[in-house]
Amino acid sequence: MTEVILPQGFMACGVHCGLKRGGREDLGVIACRGSAVFAAVFTTNRVAAAPVKLNRSRMVRSTCRAVVVNSGNANACTGERGLQDAQRMAELTARALGCEPEEVLVCSTGVIGRPLPMDRIAAGIGTAINGLSAGGGASFARAILTTDTCTKTVSVTVEIDGRQIRLAGIAKGAGMIAPRMATMLAYILTDAAVQAAYLRGLLAGVTQRTFNRITVDGDCSTNDTVIAMASGTAGNRELSGDHPGSGAFARAFEDVSRRLALMIVRDGEGAQKLVTVTVKGAASAEDAEKAVRAVAESMLVKAAWAGGRVNWGRVMDALGYSGARLEEDRVEIRYDDHPVVTGGRAAETPVAVLQEVVRQDSFTVTIDMHLGDHGATLYTCDLTEEYVRINR
Amino acid sequence: MTEVILPQGFMACGVHCGLKRGGREDLGVIACRGSAVFAAVFTTNRVAAAPVKLNRSRMVRSTCRAVVVNSGNANACTGERGLQDAQRMAELTARALGCEPEEVLVCSTGVIGRPLPMDRIAAGIGTAINGLSAGGGASFARAILTTDTCTKTVSVTVEIDGRQIRLAGIAKGAGMIAPRMATMLAYILTDAAVQAAYLRGLLAGVTQRTFNRITVDGDCSTNDTVIAMASGTAGNRELSGDHPGSGAFARAFEDVSRRLALMIVRDGEGAQKLVTVTVKGAASAEDAEKAVRAVAESMLVKAAWAGGRVNWGRVMDALGYSGARLEEDRVEIRYDDHPVVTGGRAAETPVAVLQEVVRQDSFTVTIDMHLGDHGATLYTCDLTEEYVRINR
Repeated sequence: MTEVILPQGFMACGVHCGLKRGGREDLGVIACRGSAVFAAVFTTNRVAAAPVKLNRSRMVRSTCRAVVVNSGNANACTGERGLQDAQRMAELTARALGCEPEEVLVCSTGVIGRPLPMDRIAAGIGTAINGLSAGGGASFARAILTTDTCTKTVSVTVEIDGRQIRLAGIAKGAGMIAPRMATMLAYILTDAAVQAAYLRGLLAGVTQRTFNRITVDGDCSTNDTVIAMASGTAGNRELSGDHPGSGAFARAFEDVSRRLALMIVRDGEGAQKLVTVTVKGAASAEDAEKAVRAVAESMLVKAAWAGGRVNWGRVMDALGYSGARLEEDRVEIRYDDHPVVTGGRAAETPVAVLQEVVRQDSFTVTIDMHLGDHGATLYTCDLTEEYVRINR
Repeated sequence: MTEVILPQGFMACGVHCGLKRGGREDLGVIACRGSAVFAAVFTTNRVAAAPVKLNRSRMVRSTCRAVVVNSGNANACTGERGLQDAQRMAELTARALGCEPEEVLVCSTGVIGRPLPMDRIAAGIGTAINGLSAGGGASFARAILTTDTCTKTVSVTVEIDGRQIRLAGIAKGAGMIAPRMATMLAYILTDAAVQAAYLRGLLAGVTQRTFNRITVDGDCSTNDTVIAMASGTAGNRELSGDHPGSGAFARAFEDVSRRLALMIVRDGEGAQKLVTVTVKGAASAEDAEKAVRAVAESMLVKAAWAGGRVNWGRVMDALGYSGARLEEDRVEIRYDDHPVVTGGRAAETPVAVLQEVVRQDSFTVTIDMHLGDHGATLYTCDLTEEYVRINR
């Protein structure tokens, strides 16, 4: 397990309050010592969980103090009571921290449709806030897990204005992963001083290229949330589009996001392989998206990968029903660097060579439609019996 | 195994020619003693198999004599050679029957991307045509199977113009099932005299309500084909829209089609349950379709059914990301007749009662969006470890 080093100004803690079995951590808090500039993106699922609705109402502000998160219960499809419970989580956290409830963001993940046991949550919040520390990132990372088999954390540093800027990322996610605008739960913390509007623009763009480009099962969740918080304690001049260091900061931010996103796919429910599917040469951006999503989410394609099977016919089939414009005899497919399909038919690469590729725990599938210059990439995983076992 | 009684004028045979292991039948022929009026619908997959392309060129005619089918090899993504092979299958069949190649339809099903072993196919066609008989429906039904665990046949009779009209249906399908305009392979034979244009209109409409309403894995195949053939030997006055018996014939035709379609879902790869998902009260027909397809094809929803789990949260989640207009607090869901969700939240039906429903081998999920009067139904199945095992 990687230890995550929190940027200056942040404290975190994860505790067990009785939502998950076996005494595992199930409630966590991240708090900033002062006000943090924040940005957030949420699921586009029209059935949004109560905490997502609450957080959306927080977006009129540009700063926050803390985020409180529970796992084991999604607080989704819980109606008015769910909203009150999310609000109460913010209030309890705010009271213990000595701030306003409007300064607290709330996240939940787990089973849909059950009311939260608020007595346990309330007790958990008290314990977590008592336990807050600069070294509490690891326990927080554990507290947000559901069917994940490991914590997902990243720490990087970048120099800006002669200062060491630290960024840390903590995420969860394993199933119900096909984010559209955001993904499961992810928190990106930095001690940089960052202009709020700039941070929001950065997060929106980066999310499109990272968290929104992964899929485990094509099921977009009700609770997807990515929150970025900047404590501003690193001593740099406030970052905005004009700042000469913004390029370096943006690259570090995107690096953290992409690494978290890939960790989620790697730990996809039952997944054994990380597969990067790229479509290029599509007639339009929309076509590239349709084609890449059809392949990366096809049960048959994913099951073939689980078996380490070359089975490119299933890829061709998915391209064919994707709705994307396609001329069969122009299609080219490569597994890593090896031609699999040329001119819509089997290439001459020996099957043994291709089998070696698809038996790896990570490989790429590159599809060239030869119809235009639009492209798209998705990071996906294989579909194993274990996925069904976990979810049945 | 049900014996299928072929309508007058038809003969069939299935033989083993060496495409499938274990000596199982893998090549079949249905032939009409004279010219049969025919109708056909094909996959809308833009990657269409060679025989589909060949059959499309036959649609300028209104009659045919025979259909030749092989399993074990889809003859898809096989380029110019695949087209020549399909053409050759028609020629060999025509020569043996003493008709023109243009009077023969061709179908293939199985692995994509491998050339057909034409020597075996040629030998098989000869054997099959020598073996043609009025009692050969059962061996033909076996010859078209792939991962199917059973043959799929239906026979019905209906009285028109004082004559006994017979209809028979023979189908295959178990995986790569999400037809859009047609489905895997199905043959509907009748001895009625039917006007060609009327038969084509009837097949198109019935397909929309039957074969196109099933899904096993959301993967629409390259080879989907439904062919209807009418020998005209029953002695009735030619059926068209004006004929008073056309209603009874259309009902029988739809009955045969629906029963075949449901047999395919029932025998879906690894499937244990047949689930009928209905959306009503949608704001538009397009919304109803999006909503019903999202639910019926969600890996998570289908895995929950495999486990006999109530898990309505996954149904709500799928509705939410389907793209259909939705107001969460208006949604109602029933499992069979039991309320599961009312006003977007858990209904008061005891979990034990709902569990009893979802543990059955067949049940219905009815979703009312309460936003309009549009609806849609899909017949689907659960997702089991066995599906992955078959396809990995």
